[in-house]
Amino acid sequence: MKLRVPVQVLPRHGILDPQGKAVTDALHTLGFAQVGDVHVGRHLAIEVEAASPAAASDAVRAMCAKLLANPVTEDFVIGAPEAM
Amino acid sequence: MKLRVPVQVLPRHGILDPQGKAVTDALHTLGFAQVGDVHVGRHLAIEVEAASPAAASDAVRAMCAKLLANPVTEDFVIGAPEAM
Repeated sequence: MKLRVPVQVLPRHGILDPQGKAVTDALHTLGFAQVGDVHVGRHLAIEVEAASPAAASDAVRAMCAKLLANPVTEDFVIGAPEAM
Repeated sequence: MKLRVPVQVLPRHGILDPQGKAVTDALHTLGFAQVGDVHVGRHLAIEVEAASPAAASDAVRAMCAKLLANPVTEDFVIGAPEAM
């Protein structure tokens, strides 16, 4: 079955996030004073051919460990696979 | 109340996504032959001070329109605000 697996990769908590800081400053400049911290990461939608949703999640976890996330500075969250 | 609002910004369907293509090719090279298309966008977590979750979503929608997403090439999805 063909599944689409969403993945969020975000800077690890406590790690400097210069892109997030830049977005916070830009939003304040635009008048959005109610904004606190902003964290910026990547969102990936990966289409995978797999026998089951669990197998698709396992494959995507291996991809994150090997390529998609930096294990030193980033955390990733794998969402529920959706049928396509 | 202080809320964290997740936002996903992804290239609009049909728009060329060179970063996604690069990730697809890299995953194939690493042996993940089961991968089809990959779409790469941004994930933002925005901390907002707002009267209600609906007000927080409205504020973040205005931020996306003004700064966070390119209306010509990108779509954004605002997730459910979470209490902090």
